Amino acid sequence: MTNKILSFTKMHGIGNDYIYIDCFKEDFTIKEAKKYAPILSDRHFSIGGDGIILIMPSEKNDKADVRMRMFNADGSESEMCGNGIRCVAKYTYDKGISKNNPLKIETLRGILEAKLFIKNGEVDSVEINMDSPILEGLKIPTTINKNPIIDEPIEINGKKYLFTAVSMGNPHAVIFVDDLENLDISSIGKLIENNSIFPNRTNVEFVEIINKGEVRQRTWERGSGETLACGTGASAVCVAGFISERTESKILNHLLGGDLTLDYRDGKVFMKGEARYSFEGKINLSNL
Amino acid sequence: MTNKILSFTKMHGIGNDYIYIDCFKEDFTIKEAKKYAPILSDRHFSIGGDGIILIMPSEKNDKADVRMRMFNADGSESEMCGNGIRCVAKYTYDKGISKNNPLKIETLRGILEAKLFIKNGEVDSVEINMDSPILEGLKIPTTINKNPIIDEPIEINGKKYLFTAVSMGNPHAVIFVDDLENLDISSIGKLIENNSIFPNRTNVEFVEIINKGEVRQRTWERGSGETLACGTGASAVCVAGFISERTESKILNHLLGGDLTLDYRDGKVFMKGEARYSFEGKINLSNL
Repeated sequence: MTNKILSFTKMHGIGNDYIYIDCFKEDFTIKEAKKYAPILSDRHFSIGGDGIILIMPSEKNDKADVRMRMFNADGSESEMCGNGIRCVAKYTYDKGISKNNPLKIETLRGILEAKLFIKNGEVDSVEINMDSPILEGLKIPTTINKNPIIDEPIEINGKKYLFTAVSMGNPHAVIFVDDLENLDISSIGKLIENNSIFPNRTNVEFVEIINKGEVRQRTWERGSGETLACGTGASAVCVAGFISERTESKILNHLLGGDLTLDYRDGKVFMKGEARYSFEGKINLSNL
Repeated sequence: MTNKILSFTKMHGIGNDYIYIDCFKEDFTIKEAKKYAPILSDRHFSIGGDGIILIMPSEKNDKADVRMRMFNADGSESEMCGNGIRCVAKYTYDKGISKNNPLKIETLRGILEAKLFIKNGEVDSVEINMDSPILEGLKIPTTINKNPIIDEPIEINGKKYLFTAVSMGNPHAVIFVDDLENLDISSIGKLIENNSIFPNRTNVEFVEIINKGEVRQRTWERGSGETLACGTGASAVCVAGFISERTESKILNHLLGGDLTLDYRDGKVFMKGEARYSFEGKINLSNL
């Protein structure tokens, strides 16, 4: 049996962690990524992570510096991930694949711009254009024909909550609460996620306002439960806070895994946050 | 700032996974291990694992081939781990630190013998002498002055369970059940763990008998909740099955993370199971 050794870099954006594979150097195909994503993402038997992200040459050489493809721990492919793309940008710049700033990164959601903030010659944080929110109720989708849906009541376990609905390519129900600490997020989150108002289910963000420019967020991700961080969720919170007149258009958002800055300007949400290396490794795929 | 790069090997024994550091090569002290164990064990922000295990020269050079020290994800030190010591044995043999078979491994519980089973020149599985069980009720410890404690009734949530108590250096309550699949382990496990019968709390094993030589086990670890595997727990199950006349003295035990073979002979429990590499890595400690 010949051994196939795969080199990888483990990186995270505020705790949202992926296995990054440099396909400029490694011979690793999309087919292999799909096959190995669930195996390599196992946190006890293998590398562990939220999934695999491939950093590859762009097919649109003249338009983008680099291309990313991402495969989740369940083997499915995602179009984009706000925390993941910041790590792609850091890797691309730090390793000299491209020294452009802003970087143009090709994703399944199109070519996105990443504005790099450099410290000691390496990327410290990155701002990504998360694009425009969708606020039409039926398009988010919800069953409510309003545009926008602000502070809509929903009854869960006999208690009334108010949600503001925002799609950032995926649906979010944003709920402002007084006490984030003592929230029974796993029972409330699951019931809202699966409420019949949301035909495709929904992500749920619970938000406590610190002041008009600063909030704290806990995230209930559709299909995953509570997570450390969600970039589209943080963006939806920025939009919901602004349109419900609770916050300014620019906020600092404290998530469980770390901080993001969100800026809703020119009809688009710009998200800025850190990208970090965890470690570098080699794994023998022949053993798997 | 000078960078300190630490090389490590991630290994697991039926899903019980540690970060192994070869102190024959790496300059890494006990003090650093205590400091970094919680940081490096974080599964989202760092390497991830159940803890760190150091593989070191033995202080008893004439008596042991190698020495292990283990630090849990919470920073505490453990004397020994049945799944961890198999990986220490595999690393020691495969990397040529010692080619003795059996290997003698110095632990905080004394020098233990590891019998190696070799396949294609590398260690495939390892048998460890887990020592003698303690069956005296007060020494396990329990509040029950019996020796041994077999099928003692305990009432949890209005339902009666029978437990057999065994210490393998740490306390275990072994409960034989008919249906392991539909067991609400998290509520029952927690209540038994903290029952006043057990002054130091207890680990709890739920066991379904397949036949006199084969069982399935789910493990509730004191302070950790349900885990994939527990070597002392599997040993306690072997003893409890034998003294309650449900199983033979030698059993194959299917745990969630994989299989162990337990053999209760000459008053001692011998545990045999696989040891596996996950991957090799390097981490920059200066960034932490």
